[in-house]
Amino acid sequence: MKVDHFGFNTVKTFNQRYLVADKYWKKNGGSILFYTGNEGDIIWFCNNTGFMWDVAEELKAMLVFAEHRYYGESLPFGDNSFKDSRHLNFLTSEQALADFAELIKHLKRTIPGAENQPVIAIGGSYGGMLAAWFRMKYPHMVVGALAASAPIWQFEDLVPCGVFMKIVTTDFRKSGPHCSESIHRSWDAINRLSNTGSGLQWLTGALHLCSPLTSQDIQHLKDWISETWVNLAMVDYPYASNFLQPLPAWPIKVVCQYLKNPNVSDSLLLQNIFQALNVYYNYSGQVKCLNISETATSSLGTLGWSYQACTEVVMPFCTNGVDDMFEPHSWNLKELSDDCFQQWGVRPRPSWITTMYGGKNISSHTNIVFSNGELDPWSGGGVTKDITDTLVAVTISEGAHHLDLRTKNALDPMSVLLARSLEVRHMKNWIRDFYDSAGKQH
Amino acid sequence: MKVDHFGFNTVKTFNQRYLVADKYWKKNGGSILFYTGNEGDIIWFCNNTGFMWDVAEELKAMLVFAEHRYYGESLPFGDNSFKDSRHLNFLTSEQALADFAELIKHLKRTIPGAENQPVIAIGGSYGGMLAAWFRMKYPHMVVGALAASAPIWQFEDLVPCGVFMKIVTTDFRKSGPHCSESIHRSWDAINRLSNTGSGLQWLTGALHLCSPLTSQDIQHLKDWISETWVNLAMVDYPYASNFLQPLPAWPIKVVCQYLKNPNVSDSLLLQNIFQALNVYYNYSGQVKCLNISETATSSLGTLGWSYQACTEVVMPFCTNGVDDMFEPHSWNLKELSDDCFQQWGVRPRPSWITTMYGGKNISSHTNIVFSNGELDPWSGGGVTKDITDTLVAVTISEGAHHLDLRTKNALDPMSVLLARSLEVRHMKNWIRDFYDSAGKQH
Repeated sequence: MKVDHFGFNTVKTFNQRYLVADKYWKKNGGSILFYTGNEGDIIWFCNNTGFMWDVAEELKAMLVFAEHRYYGESLPFGDNSFKDSRHLNFLTSEQALADFAELIKHLKRTIPGAENQPVIAIGGSYGGMLAAWFRMKYPHMVVGALAASAPIWQFEDLVPCGVFMKIVTTDFRKSGPHCSESIHRSWDAINRLSNTGSGLQWLTGALHLCSPLTSQDIQHLKDWISETWVNLAMVDYPYASNFLQPLPAWPIKVVCQYLKNPNVSDSLLLQNIFQALNVYYNYSGQVKCLNISETATSSLGTLGWSYQACTEVVMPFCTNGVDDMFEPHSWNLKELSDDCFQQWGVRPRPSWITTMYGGKNISSHTNIVFSNGELDPWSGGGVTKDITDTLVAVTISEGAHHLDLRTKNALDPMSVLLARSLEVRHMKNWIRDFYDSAGKQH
Repeated sequence: MKVDHFGFNTVKTFNQRYLVADKYWKKNGGSILFYTGNEGDIIWFCNNTGFMWDVAEELKAMLVFAEHRYYGESLPFGDNSFKDSRHLNFLTSEQALADFAELIKHLKRTIPGAENQPVIAIGGSYGGMLAAWFRMKYPHMVVGALAASAPIWQFEDLVPCGVFMKIVTTDFRKSGPHCSESIHRSWDAINRLSNTGSGLQWLTGALHLCSPLTSQDIQHLKDWISETWVNLAMVDYPYASNFLQPLPAWPIKVVCQYLKNPNVSDSLLLQNIFQALNVYYNYSGQVKCLNISETATSSLGTLGWSYQACTEVVMPFCTNGVDDMFEPHSWNLKELSDDCFQQWGVRPRPSWITTMYGGKNISSHTNIVFSNGELDPWSGGGVTKDITDTLVAVTISEGAHHLDLRTKNALDPMSVLLARSLEVRHMKNWIRDFYDSAGKQH
């Protein structure tokens, strides 16, 4: 793959990884489902996108999973890919979409029978944004897109910056009595305990942390705990699963069993918080201590994502401690910009994504299904109402982050079964329209 | 303007020139006509796009003319802009479209009353391609596009490579008896005359050339003459004009008055060819000698265009000497690539434009009028049949290169009057639809 699609000064190329499964593919009347890879190892996404495998036979589909550049094994400059801003210069959504376009052309050119088949883009989360954007920018390449849990409006002021943490809070409030209230009170408890050396020592022990806390770590500790609650909201699935971490069914309910009593002493509250965290970090029971520098699977490319969040993917988040269970924190672009400059030598362009992809003004596009789970905090930045007849929203009342893309499960709630059947119906329509108009041309 | 929209490693900016005329602009119910500048000085395009000025009052329109980067005064690196492939790296259509998007956002942000107005992209030739591509890629920025004489299909094998020169030939054949036949015979006459030193000397004198011909110059001489016929076909307007050169009305008819006798001696034929060339190069009568290194106005940025033709804008042309009046010349990508590498240190990517902009598969887009003149050789690569209800073709039987964009003239043929009125009707519809749907949202 070309390192730079948008300039001609470099002729460098790199190996881009993609996976193909053609067990159910039919050359006659078939289709190609193309997963627009996001910020992680493509094998991991492939293994967590069972929906595509489940519908392959019905759609006579070839499955393709394309790895996003700078993630997994698709590193434009090998070990030097993250070295500096010069090497990172080609990590953008535009380059990734161009990769997908070139890859589809390559597959159509090299796989006999693929040339005259309809391609559908499918992705979840950032991959869902890419699927939607790919249909918007390259409608000649894909007949439609399924954008699952794609927060394409989590930019600038398109949605209120507090909506994300508000949904996280709602998930906890609904999952057990006094649960969000307990978390809400935990921040001050941490603040009080961390005021003294003995308090810090006690906290280190109570939370079973791998390294002793210092007073400089406290903000980071609270951020780590917050991110844990966020991640739990994302993976609050109705059955035991292992996406970001191995977890029981409805993990927030399990967590909330430890958080029923907000009105206890600081130390008891924090001991309960530990039990809650332990559900997320130690469901297997094998973990000896908790490491506050990790929150999720290493299959996610946190380094690359940190760069993207510092350049194009600038998502404003905020909390006020009233509508949500977190400490108040306003959105601070200046601070982000300075941090980004220090870490990567680049500054964010917060309005670029809207300039490029249209923000809320996307009604002239067609054939995109936006699916969102109501439990998923990312649904706050997603498209949850139909825009036109062919830009449709599918809402999953009992769904967390792209539950619909996961393989079918006996414990799937009705809402996700309905969502998947709607999605399949749209995909079949796109495929039928493709073959209808191809037929007319002959 | 940012030098690089698609990477974050450089923070360089440059001054991009644009022109604004708001004499007829109305804040209430008005519109913005946005000229997507192409390969030349924007003042020159502005002065040759009278159509926009003519319709401004009717559409209550603000006129904006945006200069294309690397042309006119919009040089990203000043005098160093063409220094090498590193400085030229940001000369692409994608960067130019992003410039237009940023400029529109800037205008809407800074001109009171502009924010909630519909913008229409208008351009001719390469600027017409940009107008169409802008609507395709940024439909949230413009409600529609008028793409005049835009050869968006003059790429890869989307149209036969010989169609362009075939149209040039038809123009000459129809403009006078034996005219194309005379030109057809002239090449061998030149070849025979240039075989000897005295023949070269004679040719230099007969053609009134500024520098003495050597045998190495002969191919270049023939290319220069061919390009002259091509340019005449482009500007075969029904009234005296000065676009590429000052010229009489229907200049090919004037040229063909000198080319009625193909069956004469080589020397007489070439003397007649000189008379014909002299119409194009010396209509003013002030020119002392002909310079075979120039064919058109210096307002065109030939340097930048040569780079673009070596990178993205790879247009296959060919002749066979049977369907056209030229010496046979097949399309040779390898040769082009080597020449480009020698001149600029870059190699063309002939399939990129199709990957990026969809080739013939553009039916999912909306609100683009493609206008073409039947006399214009570029119409061979243009959209000359309706694709859908909202991707429409307007054909001007008596039109050369974007005649419709020129100011109205008493000698305008009926076909261009009709074309302009159709174009205005479409623009009014787009504007009306914009205000209708804006009204519904309130």
